[in-house]
Amino acid sequence: MHVRLAKVVGTTVSTAKDPALTGLTLLLCVPCNAAGEPEAGDRFVAADTVGAGVGEVVLVASGSAARVPERTRSAPIDSTVIAIVDSVQTDGKTTYSKVG
Amino acid sequence: MHVRLAKVVGTTVSTAKDPALTGLTLLLCVPCNAAGEPEAGDRFVAADTVGAGVGEVVLVASGSAARVPERTRSAPIDSTVIAIVDSVQTDGKTTYSKVG
Amino acid sequence: MHVRLAKVVGTTVSTAKDPALTGLTLLLCVPCNAAGEPEAGDRFVAADTVGAGVGEVVLVASGSAARVPERTRSAPIDSTVIAIVDSVQTDGKTTYSKVG
Amino acid sequence: MHVRLAKVVGTTVSTAKDPALTGLTLLLCVPCNAAGEPEAGDRFVAADTVGAGVGEVVLVASGSAARVPERTRSAPIDSTVIAIVDSVQTDGKTTYSKVG
Amino acid sequence: MHVRLAKVVGTTVSTAKDPALTGLTLLLCVPCNAAGEPEAGDRFVAADTVGAGVGEVVLVASGSAARVPERTRSAPIDSTVIAIVDSVQTDGKTTYSKVG
Repeated sequence: MHVRLAKVVGTTVSTAKDPALTGLTLLLCVPCNAAGEPEAGDRFVAADTVGAGVGEVVLVASGSAARVPERTRSAPIDSTVIAIVDSVQTDGKTTYSKVG
Repeated sequence: MHVRLAKVVGTTVSTAKDPALTGLTLLLCVPCNAAGEPEAGDRFVAADTVGAGVGEVVLVASGSAARVPERTRSAPIDSTVIAIVDSVQTDGKTTYSKVG
Repeated sequence: MHVRLAKVVGTTVSTAKDPALTGLTLLLCVPCNAAGEPEAGDRFVAADTVGAGVGEVVLVASGSAARVPERTRSAPIDSTVIAIVDSVQTDGKTTYSKVG
Repeated sequence: MHVRLAKVVGTTVSTAKDPALTGLTLLLCVPCNAAGEPEAGDRFVAADTVGAGVGEVVLVASGSAARVPERTRSAPIDSTVIAIVDSVQTDGKTTYSKVG
Repeated sequence: MHVRLAKVVGTTVSTAKDPALTGLTLLLCVPCNAAGEPEAGDRFVAADTVGAGVGEVVLVASGSAARVPERTRSAPIDSTVIAIVDSVQTDGKTTYSKVG
């Protein structure tokens, strides 16, 4: 339970759901490394609050942190995309960059 | 601790239990992948709040998120089915569809 | 962090402890499968609130859910036995039955 | 996220830290089995609230439970030693005893 | 979900993010052992509240504990650096020392 780097790989659609989920986009995510490459690890679903799309590397908060943003405050959600990652610097090098 | 895709595979019955569990259906679930297929991973139990049944692919919230729905608000529950999944789109393809 | 099936395998005794633990039975538990058989997985300790005993298959809630029952409300506890399992039905069959 | 048996193996010292950690002893712990023997598993750090020392087998609560004791209430801590274990009984036998 | 020893190995940069993240430094961390050496384990991201830099060994709190410090109180964050580690004593020996 930490903020994690993840890559958005898809979406899920549900008709029968908790009413507080209405209007929330639920993204399918896979953990990724400092280069933005998918890693071994379970795929999970996270609510979007920053307009993230498939293919983007994002930061995902979990637990009660996932309900801190206004959009998810009353939703039964324990993972939320809190940022789209522009770049990652590791050991002094840029290991991931969105634009290049 | 993330919202997870899971498949409902069974139910549990208890007579001696916390009184706040009365009337809640406790479903046995197994984590599943983006195709709705069971994956390696521990089976767990989740409270139903959306009328999910055995064989369905669902979204399960955990932690305090599990007690956001009205039905589970006062129950000692840390995993709750929050949606029945109609379909999953992964990398632009429909990898799971309830009706197909 | 989900409600889990577990088997009670023992107890722990402590003299030096948080005062709010006084009078609580702390059970040693091992995760188990839908047949009530112990599985690979770490043993853990859970507070009893339903009169569970060694050898029984139980449901264990974790996280803040563990402090929802009245008995554990003010205790520094993040795992609590919330029910004794009578039976488990998996894929249409009874895979565990307390009396059988 | 459960109450866990652990053995205290060390301590950590920090000068630059959250002010609410001042005066708290932060113990290095390793998960242990019902015989009090260290097990495979990540070492972690827990705040002491019961006077535990190196070599003792203890119970560690995690998550928000770690901030239930008065000493840790306002500290940014998610693992706390809540008891020193005198003995563990497993399947009817004493598998660990502090004095023996 | 415990306080963990970790080494800071990098940083992440995001433009599109939750507004409550503005001004917070988000550090890329890797779990480390009692000698301050990186261990197998997933890298994660943690908010800095103590001025930690790349190369330092730190303590990271997770879950709701991560939002106890004033700097992170209203941020959607579930992992926060709460201390820079000066030294670690394990089994009576100094296994890590910042200056040595």
